[in-house]
Amino acid sequence: MLSNLSSLVSLCKRRGVIFPSSEIYGGLSACWDYGPLGVQLKRNVQEYWWQEMTCREDVVGLDSSILMHPKIWEASGHLSEFSDPLVDCRNCKYRFRMENESTKVQCPKCGSSNLTEPRPFHLMFQTQAGPMQEDTSVIYLRPETAQGIYVNFLNVCSSMRKKIPFGVAQVGKAFRNEITVGNFIFRAREFEQMEMQFFVHPSTADSHFEYWKEKRQNSLLTMGIPKDKLRVHSHSKYQLAHYAHKAVDLEFLFPMGWKELEGIHHRGDFDLTQHQKFSRKKISYTDIERKESYVPYVIETSIGLDRLILALLCSAYHEEKVKEDTRTFLRLLPKFSPVQVAVLPLQKQAALKDLALKITNDLRKNWRVEYDDSGSIGKRYRRQDEIGTPFCVTIDFDSLSDQCMTCRHRDTMNQDRIALSSLAHYLADKSSIF
Amino acid sequence: MLSNLSSLVSLCKRRGVIFPSSEIYGGLSACWDYGPLGVQLKRNVQEYWWQEMTCREDVVGLDSSILMHPKIWEASGHLSEFSDPLVDCRNCKYRFRMENESTKVQCPKCGSSNLTEPRPFHLMFQTQAGPMQEDTSVIYLRPETAQGIYVNFLNVCSSMRKKIPFGVAQVGKAFRNEITVGNFIFRAREFEQMEMQFFVHPSTADSHFEYWKEKRQNSLLTMGIPKDKLRVHSHSKYQLAHYAHKAVDLEFLFPMGWKELEGIHHRGDFDLTQHQKFSRKKISYTDIERKESYVPYVIETSIGLDRLILALLCSAYHEEKVKEDTRTFLRLLPKFSPVQVAVLPLQKQAALKDLALKITNDLRKNWRVEYDDSGSIGKRYRRQDEIGTPFCVTIDFDSLSDQCMTCRHRDTMNQDRIALSSLAHYLADKSSIF
Repeated sequence: MLSNLSSLVSLCKRRGVIFPSSEIYGGLSACWDYGPLGVQLKRNVQEYWWQEMTCREDVVGLDSSILMHPKIWEASGHLSEFSDPLVDCRNCKYRFRMENESTKVQCPKCGSSNLTEPRPFHLMFQTQAGPMQEDTSVIYLRPETAQGIYVNFLNVCSSMRKKIPFGVAQVGKAFRNEITVGNFIFRAREFEQMEMQFFVHPSTADSHFEYWKEKRQNSLLTMGIPKDKLRVHSHSKYQLAHYAHKAVDLEFLFPMGWKELEGIHHRGDFDLTQHQKFSRKKISYTDIERKESYVPYVIETSIGLDRLILALLCSAYHEEKVKEDTRTFLRLLPKFSPVQVAVLPLQKQAALKDLALKITNDLRKNWRVEYDDSGSIGKRYRRQDEIGTPFCVTIDFDSLSDQCMTCRHRDTMNQDRIALSSLAHYLADKSSIF
Repeated sequence: MLSNLSSLVSLCKRRGVIFPSSEIYGGLSACWDYGPLGVQLKRNVQEYWWQEMTCREDVVGLDSSILMHPKIWEASGHLSEFSDPLVDCRNCKYRFRMENESTKVQCPKCGSSNLTEPRPFHLMFQTQAGPMQEDTSVIYLRPETAQGIYVNFLNVCSSMRKKIPFGVAQVGKAFRNEITVGNFIFRAREFEQMEMQFFVHPSTADSHFEYWKEKRQNSLLTMGIPKDKLRVHSHSKYQLAHYAHKAVDLEFLFPMGWKELEGIHHRGDFDLTQHQKFSRKKISYTDIERKESYVPYVIETSIGLDRLILALLCSAYHEEKVKEDTRTFLRLLPKFSPVQVAVLPLQKQAALKDLALKITNDLRKNWRVEYDDSGSIGKRYRRQDEIGTPFCVTIDFDSLSDQCMTCRHRDTMNQDRIALSSLAHYLADKSSIF
């Protein structure tokens, strides 16, 4: 339904979902702030992923720090390989990223072909820790969360006494000093990853890879991604990253085309072996029953939380003609909607407001509720539609006598008349059938 | 009960609560990773704070980015004022922080008095965004989350149509390149803040300040901080930061003494006025009913999540003599315990394991549950005590015939025999009286 991102970007700003970062100062390129409704949506989606991952006997959580020992990025290959080729225009001095090495390149600003050779530009943000301005104190903002899991493998094994196969899940910020940014929150310099590393016996790695490929697709479908907007792209052996045995992207059809949403990677023993080499600590797993000691293989699932939010918003965004007007509404699943129930007194009289506030407070124990008494009822419905509120409960004068209210449904605009006493049950029932 | 931090640090590492960051590489000073149990504890405490703050009609949430426009730190005063005085020893070249300007200073390493004058060392981590290595691309890791709220004040007002008084709550990482670090997670270079900025009419600021001072103390008490370990320290006018009208610290008695846990600050209109000046955007609030336009005052509540976790762990840590032995247990409230119920088959026979796994899966819908069948029952109890699990449910041979099990309580070690059919009700009931 959404043909380009601009109407979504505008809705998100207008309705408190996502703001450009530092906007009163002219913004900071490729950084975004989640507004009051956006942060709740993000928390709901994140918590859903977290529960799904860690409420299993065979997956535990972790939260490693953003700042890590710099040697970790030597071991992982990021220090040597994680860079973009940059070219300077000798004519106009413009600097840009060379997108494709096989094409004849011209300056995108002045069109000149008088360019420097491409030089690598590092994608990791660099800073310094401690009071000394020496090389030894150079550290990096992590460009991915995965390494925090690998370097804690031994700690998790010994403290949690997990038996292989088991996984470690983590949510956290990562940073990449990208040259080519854009498409709203699709590619930002600061972003949040949700990654899970599953440690397995080498002989079973292929079947675990297939399991997680299936599992993650199904999970995205249950979160509200439509089946016809999700596809699997397998990397050919020429596309594989240096660490990967196998890799698939789960791609989503964004308004700007099919793009990676989540990656499932069979990383073999690359990571643990590298950290063993660079840290000089023995990293292996001992299976006491089988009397076998080995370096586990890793199956990774990796999704960007911001990118997932964007895919869910794009999927949810709908416009429809209503008489002369266009109605915009977000068809989010009720479990994700920032506001699940809006309580709206039809007029401003104190008796209506009192009843509406009482209902608001009662519902708040189990639902995310918003009370709103400002503006016409039509404008209030429109706002709730735009923020994806599945249910609007309207209190009118009859409610005072018959203790009934009207429940309007976001997707159909159908209205039901419900007794106050059965409201909680009604909402639970209707939510469950989305 | 906890006389020094070392036994807690050791328990946290041994039991998967908190690990030194990058440990296999020798660690990264003043950075810590939360292990499988620590991340769950942290999420529970964070969610409690978030619910308490944002499930009010007058507070909304926000999640602003860590990277912000550098001018924000000019406006806030951090660029000019946020530094430590550093001194170099001319004799041994050691560099250290001058703790107190009025004392005669000696080098802490060699004892020499041949020192340089103190020079300011900047506490903000600096990095560069984008491909250019120019001054204009220098940015900072935020040293506090509050500024992200102030610069979004206009966006929140217009998108959420909130009327003053209202607050904006935020949880997120902040970074300070501290010289003096330590005391475990008390002062780390990377840490997580939970801040709420409450915007008020200037005439009511004092009463809101008193309200939040009370409110935050009560909240800490309900989270398990003992009354005799919490005190209020009011800043004299000589101690006040440059932005503050009034300030109190809520101090906790850590093993290393009374230290700040949370700050409540009356910041006046300092922040919004500064951002108005530096951004050249008009930042004010218009009260339509009163026909009045003004710059709101701000009452801030600011607590470090890691520091709060440390206070809760210190409060929970208990040792007691049991016969010849010492039993260590964490008296965490069940709502915060990483594991709420441990299900333990007494022996390894398949029938016991099957029943225990069935109970584990049933309980998992409503509780954080762990199944454990390894080692002696005594060792398993000890592990659950150390991670603060309030209930251990033990399945024995009689359970197979009488469908009853034993529930052992962490704090008293009392055991009750419970019918399987009433277990869920029993646990809910016992949890509610902590």
